[in-house]
Amino acid sequence: MKQIEEPKLPLYLQVARQIEGQIRKGALRIGDRVPSIRGLRRQQGVSVSTVLQAYFWLENQGWIEPRPQSGFYVRAPYAELAPEPEFQASQSAPTEIGVSSLLDEIVKTIGDRRSVPLGAAAASPALYPNARLNKIIGKIARTDPAHSGRYELTNGLEPLRRQIARRAITYGCSFSPNDLTITCGGMEALNLAVRAVARPGDVIAIESPTYFAVLQIIESLGMKAIEIPTHPRAGMDLDALSRAIRKHRVRGCISITNCHNPLGFILDEDYKKNLVRLLTKHNVPLIEDDIYGDLAFSSVRPKPAKAFDTDGIVLLCSSFSKVLAPGFRIGWIEPGRYRDAVRRLKFINTVAAPSLPQLVIAEFIGSGGYDRYLRGLRQTLSSQQQLYSQAAARYFPEGTKISRPAGGCVLWFELPKNVDALKLYRLAALQNISILPGLIFSASGKFTNYVRMSCGFPLDDSIDNALRTLGKLCGTAVTPIPLLAEEGWLRRAKRRRRRGGQTGVPLISPN
Amino acid sequence: MKQIEEPKLPLYLQVARQIEGQIRKGALRIGDRVPSIRGLRRQQGVSVSTVLQAYFWLENQGWIEPRPQSGFYVRAPYAELAPEPEFQASQSAPTEIGVSSLLDEIVKTIGDRRSVPLGAAAASPALYPNARLNKIIGKIARTDPAHSGRYELTNGLEPLRRQIARRAITYGCSFSPNDLTITCGGMEALNLAVRAVARPGDVIAIESPTYFAVLQIIESLGMKAIEIPTHPRAGMDLDALSRAIRKHRVRGCISITNCHNPLGFILDEDYKKNLVRLLTKHNVPLIEDDIYGDLAFSSVRPKPAKAFDTDGIVLLCSSFSKVLAPGFRIGWIEPGRYRDAVRRLKFINTVAAPSLPQLVIAEFIGSGGYDRYLRGLRQTLSSQQQLYSQAAARYFPEGTKISRPAGGCVLWFELPKNVDALKLYRLAALQNISILPGLIFSASGKFTNYVRMSCGFPLDDSIDNALRTLGKLCGTAVTPIPLLAEEGWLRRAKRRRRRGGQTGVPLISPN
Repeated sequence: MKQIEEPKLPLYLQVARQIEGQIRKGALRIGDRVPSIRGLRRQQGVSVSTVLQAYFWLENQGWIEPRPQSGFYVRAPYAELAPEPEFQASQSAPTEIGVSSLLDEIVKTIGDRRSVPLGAAAASPALYPNARLNKIIGKIARTDPAHSGRYELTNGLEPLRRQIARRAITYGCSFSPNDLTITCGGMEALNLAVRAVARPGDVIAIESPTYFAVLQIIESLGMKAIEIPTHPRAGMDLDALSRAIRKHRVRGCISITNCHNPLGFILDEDYKKNLVRLLTKHNVPLIEDDIYGDLAFSSVRPKPAKAFDTDGIVLLCSSFSKVLAPGFRIGWIEPGRYRDAVRRLKFINTVAAPSLPQLVIAEFIGSGGYDRYLRGLRQTLSSQQQLYSQAAARYFPEGTKISRPAGGCVLWFELPKNVDALKLYRLAALQNISILPGLIFSASGKFTNYVRMSCGFPLDDSIDNALRTLGKLCGTAVTPIPLLAEEGWLRRAKRRRRRGGQTGVPLISPN
Repeated sequence: MKQIEEPKLPLYLQVARQIEGQIRKGALRIGDRVPSIRGLRRQQGVSVSTVLQAYFWLENQGWIEPRPQSGFYVRAPYAELAPEPEFQASQSAPTEIGVSSLLDEIVKTIGDRRSVPLGAAAASPALYPNARLNKIIGKIARTDPAHSGRYELTNGLEPLRRQIARRAITYGCSFSPNDLTITCGGMEALNLAVRAVARPGDVIAIESPTYFAVLQIIESLGMKAIEIPTHPRAGMDLDALSRAIRKHRVRGCISITNCHNPLGFILDEDYKKNLVRLLTKHNVPLIEDDIYGDLAFSSVRPKPAKAFDTDGIVLLCSSFSKVLAPGFRIGWIEPGRYRDAVRRLKFINTVAAPSLPQLVIAEFIGSGGYDRYLRGLRQTLSSQQQLYSQAAARYFPEGTKISRPAGGCVLWFELPKNVDALKLYRLAALQNISILPGLIFSASGKFTNYVRMSCGFPLDDSIDNALRTLGKLCGTAVTPIPLLAEEGWLRRAKRRRRRGGQTGVPLISPN
């Protein structure tokens, strides 16, 4: 085996760094095709899987992108984009629940169709394979006319569970169809998972920032959350997680491991292994939210942490809502050793998932149509994300930093410190532009100068105008917030955080 | 106005009792047409609405039945059927949760398609208007091809909410479409309602017997239940309910007011008014489960208690699962003053209900098809119920009592005291016959000699044979239960009940 620079790095990373170096030095330029997998394998004397891992890493880092039936190409370098948000490891102290009332207000308006759709994390309906789905619907109506007349099994239709299990092999997971439960969307999967592992009063470790509904679920169940500082590229600080587990009675940990919402990262496999190892050691179940996993921009579908779970402590939650059909309301969960508890909770929560969408998805996956369609969707979202970033970099004030997502359909903006993102959200809403203020992604009033924007719709003139408007509004959104209902709690939360600065990570204690 | 016998009764009841007397005396015989509405109105000098109320009452009591486009006819008198189960007002003492593990076991098998379907409370898929629903599905796929591509509003599609509100007028309820939330079936509606009014540790008053999933929901949320003795025809003992409210911190009351599951009664309007008045006085919300209301055998759809709610304390839960399409998973809730809480919980439980079924049902109701179809379904279920009762009366041992449901699709059997219904359930399962043992309808191990049977499928030879087999098995199911997993808790529960005989109604205290 040839010796390459930086001998302590894993082999694939050594290969990847070489390519990265060539791009940085200009030897490979935007649009250039990088060496083929076979070519690089021969050139470096490494295995195909090492090359694939290297290219996967380069994709995640945003250096290259795959083009179907062609190979990997160097993409628009980040040098042209705004810089990325920075990691703030600042530990903070216990706070009472912060964002509950604000979340209620914002969630009500999140899907408002009259607004420019930068709020909800959803692709444009036009990007979904609606015609093909309707064709399958018509076929089922003919061949199984009583499809809606039956109560289906609580854990879902067997053909769909079988297809999900079959596909899971491609991303390193070996499931039995009998262990899966089909849910009413990914949200129900998360709910069942949390309820299966914890009871009111228990503590759940979460990423910070994290998907806001995670906060709402934890609060609604009378549980507490402990926020673990989370690096915008590299995930939760595992040392901080370990300390939190030792200090508090943590009953579960929620992590969005692939195409994080809102940060956009895909955690690398070593990290995922370490995370599972740490949690297994402390017997803390991992609730893994993988609903964006199929939207990774890489050519290889990233593995979930579940792929490294030997003890059944990972409850893997996923969904077809983000990738195929939000209106179907079909998600699923592989709950590891919590299978029976999840199935019981599923029955008393919603009995079963709707039948027709399950039949349709099973048929679509089984025919191979799903994976073919996914390749195109990922390509589209990847280029939309670049276009949005480039436009925002033009319009937003200096000092703005933008995430470089490895998949999914959201961008995470760090605005200059003097911009009040909640005020920006309110000013935008007045102009019918829907965005999400950063502080709803934290339990304790953090991320006040951050916003999350969806890039799920093609960047047309109306969206370009909206981005320009938002850029301008950043100039207006710098004055102090006027006295609003939630200002009181925000002030109190911050004061509390300052006071108890040495006590570590914050806690939600609902009401 | 003419003076009739029993002057203290409401006028409609006086009229009804006259007709009842004529039937009892044989002046009107099975199959005879009773006087037309107009005829009786003239004859008695009362209003049309009084006559309608009288006939409605007679229907509920099982004396007459409507035939479409024809009038009311005297039906098979109950004298030919087995007698009804009796009211047992016996107060019992607090117990720990009784039926949890047994329920888990039974619910797993409840929808097993290999069994004779006497278990699940569902009509035969062949009784639903599948062809018409599929036609509408096809139409929507053509006219709104992206139906599945959108996230719909959390409270559901406006056209469906509008149709539900429009129909509600016919049963005395005035809803704004904006106050309704569409749910993933009636089970989610119940969940959201319970979570909106109570928190872990709170006490919920329930009927005894009640739908077993009510017990599971309460337990899963870490709440406690207090069982109110419930008359097989007349509903909860309101004095006992009042005492329970005074004694315990009751945060909600769950009642199945129309076509009770498992008892089959429709509560009369005066009772419903009294129930709402009592709960309003004590500021205890009523969670009203009305999912069988559209299946009342009467020609007039019975009002829910919600129709008498002036203060917004009733959370009315309903569903299309029992009447139209179990596989659609579409229910709804009108949560009164808890609207915002329910909507918030709906978002974090399942985001929204599936789109296509909502569009289909809205279209079906709007076209008038739903109400036309319902008339036939009710007729069918009513006659199935009679046929099942008659068959069971032939096959079951002397001393068996059978409910006389006013609607829905279940029968409640009180077996001779020496029959162990759990053993009967197990013996039946061995012969692939699915029934439900009575004790899962109570939190405290009551109803050990009761079973619930569905009469939702046409009574064919296989079901007739199954009923005959069950009748015979009653003879075998009289020995003591062999040592089973749940025997321990059952014994403890009963001992606890005996010990604390004076403390009133029983409490579930989960774990």
